[in-house]
Amino acid sequence: MKFPISLLAIALASLMAAPLQAKDKPKNVILLVVDGMGPVYTSAYRYFADDPATKQVESTVIDELVVGTASTYPDADRGVITDSAAAATALSSGIKSYNGAIGVDRNHKPVQTMLEMAKAKGKRTGIAVTSQIVHATPAAFIAHNDSRKNYNAIADAYFDERIDGKFKADVMLGGGWDYFIRPDRNLVEEFTTEGYQYIDDMAQLGQLQQDQPVLGLFAKVGLPWALDMQGQPRLKALTQAAVSQLENRKGYFLLVEASQVDWAGHANDIAAAMAEMADFVDTLEWLKEYVESRKDTLLVVTADHSTGGLSMGAGNEYLWRPDMIKSLEASPDSLALLAMEQAPGQRAELIASALGLSPSQAQSAAIAQAEDSQALSAAIKLMIDEATHTGWTTHGHSGVDVPVLATGVGAEQFAGFQDNTDIAKKLINMINR
Amino acid sequence: MKFPISLLAIALASLMAAPLQAKDKPKNVILLVVDGMGPVYTSAYRYFADDPATKQVESTVIDELVVGTASTYPDADRGVITDSAAAATALSSGIKSYNGAIGVDRNHKPVQTMLEMAKAKGKRTGIAVTSQIVHATPAAFIAHNDSRKNYNAIADAYFDERIDGKFKADVMLGGGWDYFIRPDRNLVEEFTTEGYQYIDDMAQLGQLQQDQPVLGLFAKVGLPWALDMQGQPRLKALTQAAVSQLENRKGYFLLVEASQVDWAGHANDIAAAMAEMADFVDTLEWLKEYVESRKDTLLVVTADHSTGGLSMGAGNEYLWRPDMIKSLEASPDSLALLAMEQAPGQRAELIASALGLSPSQAQSAAIAQAEDSQALSAAIKLMIDEATHTGWTTHGHSGVDVPVLATGVGAEQFAGFQDNTDIAKKLINMINR
Repeated sequence: MKFPISLLAIALASLMAAPLQAKDKPKNVILLVVDGMGPVYTSAYRYFADDPATKQVESTVIDELVVGTASTYPDADRGVITDSAAAATALSSGIKSYNGAIGVDRNHKPVQTMLEMAKAKGKRTGIAVTSQIVHATPAAFIAHNDSRKNYNAIADAYFDERIDGKFKADVMLGGGWDYFIRPDRNLVEEFTTEGYQYIDDMAQLGQLQQDQPVLGLFAKVGLPWALDMQGQPRLKALTQAAVSQLENRKGYFLLVEASQVDWAGHANDIAAAMAEMADFVDTLEWLKEYVESRKDTLLVVTADHSTGGLSMGAGNEYLWRPDMIKSLEASPDSLALLAMEQAPGQRAELIASALGLSPSQAQSAAIAQAEDSQALSAAIKLMIDEATHTGWTTHGHSGVDVPVLATGVGAEQFAGFQDNTDIAKKLINMINR
Repeated sequence: MKFPISLLAIALASLMAAPLQAKDKPKNVILLVVDGMGPVYTSAYRYFADDPATKQVESTVIDELVVGTASTYPDADRGVITDSAAAATALSSGIKSYNGAIGVDRNHKPVQTMLEMAKAKGKRTGIAVTSQIVHATPAAFIAHNDSRKNYNAIADAYFDERIDGKFKADVMLGGGWDYFIRPDRNLVEEFTTEGYQYIDDMAQLGQLQQDQPVLGLFAKVGLPWALDMQGQPRLKALTQAAVSQLENRKGYFLLVEASQVDWAGHANDIAAAMAEMADFVDTLEWLKEYVESRKDTLLVVTADHSTGGLSMGAGNEYLWRPDMIKSLEASPDSLALLAMEQAPGQRAELIASALGLSPSQAQSAAIAQAEDSQALSAAIKLMIDEATHTGWTTHGHSGVDVPVLATGVGAEQFAGFQDNTDIAKKLINMINR
């Protein structure tokens, strides 16, 4: 018996296409957004983390996973530089919107997000972040609001809005007591009444019941700086707990956010920024191993924008010296609060000892003149900037393209240049298929 | 007769290896270095070049070709931030050296460059740059010197040093009369005596004899700013002429350098920087078409470092507004020289009209107080920075990783993260095989 060649070709093609199609469709999708991480942060982290005992500069897990870059501009009329809300809406839905938009388009109309699509497909869904869980990035995956500033309304939406009668997120881990336990409404009570387990201490992460949804809030607003939580569990612990809760037969979508690289950038605080990067890298190392040990999961990592106009090198010197940052045991903010408790004459000495730096005459004057802890923190950050040769141009965002990292099933789709909305479209295509 | 399976396997493997080997070994290699082009320059160019008449932000030829990134730190003891000489030595030879090094290692010992290897293999070789042809980047491919500052000695080496009795570069196009026609030595005469054709006007590029080496010098030092040469031939014309001279049966190596993006960064001049980027993109568009129309050529594009700590966005505003730069007809430097010829009271008016901006009171004062054209140029640049929301942190370099672009035979080898020495090693492997 002879097969017509065309039929044989079709049979062969379908045999070959079937595994290919399954191969590039992940069961689980993890999107890790590092808020504010422009390209200079990933480069700087390499030199910050480098072991000075070896001659080689060691490459990082970020370097191993970089596959491309993404543009981040908001809705075209609005002037190149995005905020976290417009960028998160682009990443959650594939649609450009205005700065401030939470899951709504330029006409303030709600747009469907990939978390909602995953839920509609019967997958489990979750968020694990170091900001309050209603902050712009996670909010734009779950809620729809004209303005990122409406934190209470966004928290309400987490409870009130459902997909096919189901809550949108099975796992919510981060900060935010202020928005969930309010005089007008106690959302923690409402969630627990509806079957959620609630924890408010990261030590409880190991005691969670499997197969029961979870709300975990660990701070009034955002978590403390990573630099002030050394030795304590942070984003990796949240991520591990989230993954463990989410794993199931039908797959899951998880949004992880290293939220505070951006906050360190806004504060022009290189020490806090590097500690937040280390907290992210700690998480990424675990996620890489997790994803690469399986054959059903995709991890994509990107940033929403860069923050602070950070540069390694400033004031015309061809140097960047991050070494002194490594030995810091507290953030400039915490150090300033501590120093304000001292008599004015003793502040410089405490700061000099904490930084391992002798203040110049101008720096001593700035320390002496600081009227509150915020001004003192600014003086401390300036000392660190001068010692490390770190530069900043703004307390806001900048417009440079951001890195894109990927590993696991379908990772090759994220190679090269793309817009942030393209990242969303590719993920949505995988989730919706 | 039966073949032993192992022999058959070897025969089959070699049959299959042969076309693969040929496929990823280019006959011609073009390396285009954009001096100073950190990631912010490629992002900024997209928004600068964007057509405001369309709703979409158009992606650029750079976006189409981006495949990876590269770290650029110099020899490890020296502090993260490279100069152009150490970076060019890394790119030409695969060896890290100290800032200032021209084709020598940390012990000041000459290292073989890919241009020299290509010449030793019987290929043609060339350079086409917008700086003087003895500037750090091209110099580190042809010469070996303790210091980039020894321009005359480097020019001498271009003539005096040979590979198997042959001159190292068959085509040298750029600026540099000052170093080749000197009171102590006339290298132009020496080259023409040895059979080189010499031209000193870009209009002569079309009249070059094929199969005869060429020295073309078009300026005392570097070429004028691209912004001051609008409508005149520049890097694309040099590159086209070089390629046309170099094509031959045995293949060629060509170094192209868009040299002055860096100079604009050092000058903190966003208008000059965007015009240099446009000049590079003009060249890149032609090179892409040339390489992709053939099956024997590789084009790799990268930068040696970033310059100026440039940011889109500054002073806390979420805006970058490059539109006004597009209508400039001269560089701030040229405009300042022109304005200094006016009576002091008329300078502000001339500048306001050229920029299409009304100076603020502070800006008017800066213009009135400028004592020379340099101070006046600085005042003009500050007006442009404020109008566009452009930030800078240094007049030197910064340490961020740089983009890597590639197309043609073997381009896939440059995907993802790599060190600048890895770029060289990959190219050397292709040239030397």
